[in-house]
Amino acid sequence: MSPFVAEILGTALLILLGAGIVANTILNGTKGKAGGWIAITTGWALAVFVGVVVAGPYSGAHLNPAVSVGLAIAGKFSWEQVPVYVAAQFIGAMTGAFLAYSMYKDHFDTTDDPGLKRAVFCTDPAIPDNFRNLLSEILGTFVLLVCVFYFTDPEVNDGNGTTIGLGSIGALPVAFVVWAIGLSLGGTTGYAINPARDLGPRIVHALLPIKGKGSNGWGYAWIPVFGPVIGAALAALLYMSF
Amino acid sequence: MSPFVAEILGTALLILLGAGIVANTILNGTKGKAGGWIAITTGWALAVFVGVVVAGPYSGAHLNPAVSVGLAIAGKFSWEQVPVYVAAQFIGAMTGAFLAYSMYKDHFDTTDDPGLKRAVFCTDPAIPDNFRNLLSEILGTFVLLVCVFYFTDPEVNDGNGTTIGLGSIGALPVAFVVWAIGLSLGGTTGYAINPARDLGPRIVHALLPIKGKGSNGWGYAWIPVFGPVIGAALAALLYMSF
Amino acid sequence: MSPFVAEILGTALLILLGAGIVANTILNGTKGKAGGWIAITTGWALAVFVGVVVAGPYSGAHLNPAVSVGLAIAGKFSWEQVPVYVAAQFIGAMTGAFLAYSMYKDHFDTTDDPGLKRAVFCTDPAIPDNFRNLLSEILGTFVLLVCVFYFTDPEVNDGNGTTIGLGSIGALPVAFVVWAIGLSLGGTTGYAINPARDLGPRIVHALLPIKGKGSNGWGYAWIPVFGPVIGAALAALLYMSF
Amino acid sequence: MSPFVAEILGTALLILLGAGIVANTILNGTKGKAGGWIAITTGWALAVFVGVVVAGPYSGAHLNPAVSVGLAIAGKFSWEQVPVYVAAQFIGAMTGAFLAYSMYKDHFDTTDDPGLKRAVFCTDPAIPDNFRNLLSEILGTFVLLVCVFYFTDPEVNDGNGTTIGLGSIGALPVAFVVWAIGLSLGGTTGYAINPARDLGPRIVHALLPIKGKGSNGWGYAWIPVFGPVIGAALAALLYMSF
Repeated sequence: MSPFVAEILGTALLILLGAGIVANTILNGTKGKAGGWIAITTGWALAVFVGVVVAGPYSGAHLNPAVSVGLAIAGKFSWEQVPVYVAAQFIGAMTGAFLAYSMYKDHFDTTDDPGLKRAVFCTDPAIPDNFRNLLSEILGTFVLLVCVFYFTDPEVNDGNGTTIGLGSIGALPVAFVVWAIGLSLGGTTGYAINPARDLGPRIVHALLPIKGKGSNGWGYAWIPVFGPVIGAALAALLYMSF
Repeated sequence: MSPFVAEILGTALLILLGAGIVANTILNGTKGKAGGWIAITTGWALAVFVGVVVAGPYSGAHLNPAVSVGLAIAGKFSWEQVPVYVAAQFIGAMTGAFLAYSMYKDHFDTTDDPGLKRAVFCTDPAIPDNFRNLLSEILGTFVLLVCVFYFTDPEVNDGNGTTIGLGSIGALPVAFVVWAIGLSLGGTTGYAINPARDLGPRIVHALLPIKGKGSNGWGYAWIPVFGPVIGAALAALLYMSF
Repeated sequence: MSPFVAEILGTALLILLGAGIVANTILNGTKGKAGGWIAITTGWALAVFVGVVVAGPYSGAHLNPAVSVGLAIAGKFSWEQVPVYVAAQFIGAMTGAFLAYSMYKDHFDTTDDPGLKRAVFCTDPAIPDNFRNLLSEILGTFVLLVCVFYFTDPEVNDGNGTTIGLGSIGALPVAFVVWAIGLSLGGTTGYAINPARDLGPRIVHALLPIKGKGSNGWGYAWIPVFGPVIGAALAALLYMSF
Repeated sequence: MSPFVAEILGTALLILLGAGIVANTILNGTKGKAGGWIAITTGWALAVFVGVVVAGPYSGAHLNPAVSVGLAIAGKFSWEQVPVYVAAQFIGAMTGAFLAYSMYKDHFDTTDDPGLKRAVFCTDPAIPDNFRNLLSEILGTFVLLVCVFYFTDPEVNDGNGTTIGLGSIGALPVAFVVWAIGLSLGGTTGYAINPARDLGPRIVHALLPIKGKGSNGWGYAWIPVFGPVIGAALAALLYMSF
């Protein structure tokens, strides 16, 4: 599998499962209705786990333009590859959102609140405030990228510097970090922390003929794009300064 | 332990624990009453963990006809073994459902709603819609099988291609994937994603003299059989095309 | 640390944390009030994790007479050591229960229902029924012991049969199994699955001058002693027959 | 990264995420409002995971003066380094608390109860009782430090005593132990179990011009400082006596 295909597949799985947990928790008539923030954040963390398990060995499983840009700033990823990865991430995110909608369509149709329908696709702030909302997305992505930079691999301490790949279990730490960010830093803006995760599905929301659809929230759309990129850049600067 | 016995024992543990978490959450008078979707999905994920821990070293722990068929399509499992595995999975699933009923019988007897009683055994759709319900089971099983195909084993990077078996902890990734599917994609049909898990206990529900029993839901029974097989086949095709 | 001391310390930690999560969830005025079954079962699973982390390297971390007896039946533990281990387990369980009571005493004092006070110490059935309650304890302990028998250790597949100790992370599988049992099979009797865990604290409940104390529930006390031993014996027989 | 910087960064992440989960759960208008004790304890456990992942390779990730003191008493850490570590831990804790406040400021402003505002920063007892509150902090920290002393590293059993570093996944056990302590022993005082975690943010609460701010709770502030140190000392004595 090429990195391009892996980023599409991994991000599609991430967003199918991520949009899925939101749909299951907030739309009408679902089995998981009213599961609350613990269900939403657990589901998103596990969505990351699945995406990283599948894409990891082929593309490094960025699944997030902020990760690609942050790694490129720090010199750990080629700038030439960034547009390829970002394009794949958007294609994947839009595919995943479409699949989640297709599956939960009956529940969209029986939900009246257009805000809930859109929330399956993309984030919106609990209290609109450009400065604090941007700060939230910066901080959340900063924490994600700091962890990405400082993750360490297993190794055998036998003097030969032998490293160990843990296989699929190696996807756990990043899932746990995303779980942490969701629980702790997701309370203000819903932790997009990923431009493709937010803007891709927002475009799908705009394009799909969803029954009773409301605003696409374009006025807010720039924050979950620029915030994560700024947060990633700050984390890269921190990493490079030590 | 032969693969046949291992699949019986592993699937029996899976369904005893899986039916158990549903019984504990929805029947009257239980200690776990009203635990919600997070409890149900966590319980099913851990049920998979237990089944895989026990059966894994002996049969590969398919525990699911869709897994056996998907692996066979991809050429990673012998077609001759498929009927043996599927038979064992159904025997195990029916045994597990019977044990769960035996244990929770007092709580079945004090629960009035026949729909709740049946829900301990098998799935039913939140909103009946053949196309979307089938799509849900296809997508859920597709995600499961994609992960199964792309799971990677631990290895030592010393140039010899030495692999590591993680022992029982190696059962974690598949449990986490099932947790993800349940939380995110289980909201429409209850994620059977396994023909034996649904049809086996449904037959037990039909046979047992359960007090106040209602319909067996035969009209829906084909979806959690065919959906998972289609989803598994699609995942196998994806895997083979890369 | 001798095995005797390790079993005391490990079981004391298990019961301090296990009684603690129940106290925190059901007594009046606590920070974790009304956390529900998911909190209780997660807490008990983590209590097992802590006990096994500490005692594991020194005693094998049985922490449960049913485990000691089951392993002895299967020939994997010396019968001579069984009384030593069981004595340590009871001493530890009683110590842990006393510490949990000491810490939560103010909350015991502000809780009126004597049933809730006792529930911090020991189990009682949701619906009294000797046969089904005994069956519940048998099944729960059977699942625990089957897993204990079939747990596998990590190893390096280099042809030398080299094994790996995962250190403290190696305590995860048994904690996850206990989490599974609690969620799925704990709904009827509260899953003692351990004679020392139930009878030890029940004796402490009988001895302590708890304000507004009610019955010690002696009429039920035999079930969480004999059920676990029977379940362990059945698992040992299953293991030996394959 | 020097140990001093690592302790600052790790503790800042710990408290940003730890204060964040409390803010998200109890302040008005957040996405995670009313998530309950399971959300709070899961969030704090994951906060520890993140802090340990980042700081672990550089400072050993104490992130807690009680850990530094406990290890020093047991002869496993240099007393000369204790003031350096403790200073870094306080700087980090205060930084993290400030960042969490900055991010959640809009939600502080729309929350009336000054007790909830302060609870984001520091702990207070469910039922004030100097003896039992101190005992709670002693017991909680004792359990933490006992686990820290008895954690074991992975190793290869090939006769050479070769050890394995699990990389970032190696941060899981301490996170699980903190999860256990929170669920089981956090019900009385809110489990500070760390002087820097409580006193640092309490000072930030005193200094910040928070709208509608109430008491800083100085009368209670000594308990989450002395309790953890006593608990750590007792664990060190236990460890040294075996």
